[in-house]
Amino acid sequence: MTELERLRNSIREADSDWKEKAWERLRSQIRPRGSLGYLEEIAARLAAIQGTLIPDVSRKIIFTMAGDHGVAEEGVSAYPQEVTAQMVYSFTRGWASINVLASHAGADVRVVDCGVAADLPQDWPVIHGKIGHGTANMAQGPAMTREAAAAGILLGAGLVERAFEEEGYRLFGTGDMGIANTTASTAIVAAFSGKPVAELTGRGTGIDDQGWARKVEVIERALAVNRPDPEDPLDVLSKVGGYEIAALAGAVLGAAKVRAPVVCDGFIATAGALVACRWAPAARDYVFLSHRSREVGHGAMIDLLGIRPILDLDMRLGEGTGSALAMNIVDAAARVLKDIKTFEEAGVTDTGH
Amino acid sequence: MTELERLRNSIREADSDWKEKAWERLRSQIRPRGSLGYLEEIAARLAAIQGTLIPDVSRKIIFTMAGDHGVAEEGVSAYPQEVTAQMVYSFTRGWASINVLASHAGADVRVVDCGVAADLPQDWPVIHGKIGHGTANMAQGPAMTREAAAAGILLGAGLVERAFEEEGYRLFGTGDMGIANTTASTAIVAAFSGKPVAELTGRGTGIDDQGWARKVEVIERALAVNRPDPEDPLDVLSKVGGYEIAALAGAVLGAAKVRAPVVCDGFIATAGALVACRWAPAARDYVFLSHRSREVGHGAMIDLLGIRPILDLDMRLGEGTGSALAMNIVDAAARVLKDIKTFEEAGVTDTGH
Repeated sequence: MTELERLRNSIREADSDWKEKAWERLRSQIRPRGSLGYLEEIAARLAAIQGTLIPDVSRKIIFTMAGDHGVAEEGVSAYPQEVTAQMVYSFTRGWASINVLASHAGADVRVVDCGVAADLPQDWPVIHGKIGHGTANMAQGPAMTREAAAAGILLGAGLVERAFEEEGYRLFGTGDMGIANTTASTAIVAAFSGKPVAELTGRGTGIDDQGWARKVEVIERALAVNRPDPEDPLDVLSKVGGYEIAALAGAVLGAAKVRAPVVCDGFIATAGALVACRWAPAARDYVFLSHRSREVGHGAMIDLLGIRPILDLDMRLGEGTGSALAMNIVDAAARVLKDIKTFEEAGVTDTGH
Repeated sequence: MTELERLRNSIREADSDWKEKAWERLRSQIRPRGSLGYLEEIAARLAAIQGTLIPDVSRKIIFTMAGDHGVAEEGVSAYPQEVTAQMVYSFTRGWASINVLASHAGADVRVVDCGVAADLPQDWPVIHGKIGHGTANMAQGPAMTREAAAAGILLGAGLVERAFEEEGYRLFGTGDMGIANTTASTAIVAAFSGKPVAELTGRGTGIDDQGWARKVEVIERALAVNRPDPEDPLDVLSKVGGYEIAALAGAVLGAAKVRAPVVCDGFIATAGALVACRWAPAARDYVFLSHRSREVGHGAMIDLLGIRPILDLDMRLGEGTGSALAMNIVDAAARVLKDIKTFEEAGVTDTGH
């Protein structure tokens, strides 16, 4: 059995008995039944994931997966490829959006070089997991080999597993950095959904009308050239994905393996989660979607996963910023389950509503 | 000039120059323009409110305004009136939802007896501001006098002013407790919007179909008996409002006076904010709506105020629970404005997108 098969075989559904026990407690708390809405569903899912009525999500970490995309040479992004490395440098200095929002959330951030095109100095405080110097141009052939996709998955899964086992992290977040990665993510959701590319393609970081038309054409070409098989998620991932998207999928699978909740960021991170849940459907029980991205194709991903996003703030930044914001809500849901007293505990009149 | 007139005259719009300066900084940060969506609007509003690019919302407090409603005798609620005092007791013990979520938000909670029907023991750690032992039954006549409504407003405004001036709180939240207060709040939004009562009436804490039909009929009767004048917000407040709703309006006005942001909870707190902003339109600049409540009439209130709620989690609890959750997002927005570096500061390539 390969390491990848062992990973998949290790993933089990969350525990529905604990979910039911959580709902019993939630229904008996001193407030009208159901009055905390979606927070209650999050709380019940945490109970099922960790197998307890006192879920622990205090130690939080976000993995920001960085990678470059050969398809950038088709002119699909508003930014040049060198920005990927520049932004990774900003992350290491604490200057960027993810640093600010993760700090606010009480979450640590680790930046992972999954496949940045530039050679990053070894003394940068990033996890040097480079699988390749950017993917190949998917408009001309596969973005990467199946072996490279597997390596990306194992990279992400291993990071989460070790952070859980060796460092005691209990709530995971995913985020991305990589010029042209909305192009790859759009191709992934097009492959899985079968919907027209034009319906799924957004503006990424801010291309104009002409750039958008080119992006649609490039994605259509990538799908025509590669013919990714939606029944084979690793085929989709390797042909039109990216190194960081493989690692984002791996992070979800690693979290599912260790039975930990993972909060996914927006469009790119959800593309990774989608690959993960297509390949190992039980992993879905561990996935929270932090927010509904403004990127247009995100809605189709959300529909395919069938998971309600926590926030809807018109964000479209990436880096893990949505994960950071939503972690506070997930943490609040855990507190709700643990700390709000029941009618019986508090001696308050319960009319059963 | 009465104290109420002085309060109204003290309220000025927020500073649009600071808003523009904030947008300049937000647009120059190392991320695609507009990529943080609604967080940026919140950040710019905080700058305009406090007149600074480094808004301070670190010290947070939620006022939970409690009051009873004479209309409860019409059988419009699923809970008996004694629950108001029981829940106030729970708040003082730290057992309830607001205690848990405020603690999670790093916010203090003060519970205010604005008009609970029961006499609360003087040694309970609440603010004893009782204006009356529950309002009169609005289905038979005015809920309270105009003087009582003014007293409620001044109570709420004074609490916020003193917390700002004497204790250094910089972010305020509002919340409510009071059996039958969705009935009063529905009457308020019906009076201001002119929409049919049946379109605005929800299930409150959980009444059945028969109870819902009775609630609609009672609200229609209250409006017919009292004929509140939508051009005179104090007339609406006194005839079909409540003591705690007056104090919730006052809290918004107090925050506007001291130029501090105030995060309003759901249906009841927004009814108070609506009264405040109808009476002193400039107060709107200081109001944040924490979430879109599941209570059906809340949408009409949101439309009248023209303020986008921060969260949408199907909550319908009150107590200030939505305020507590949303305070974290408001705080995050302040951090975004202050702490994310600009392209110039970070030396990253800016293509102007």
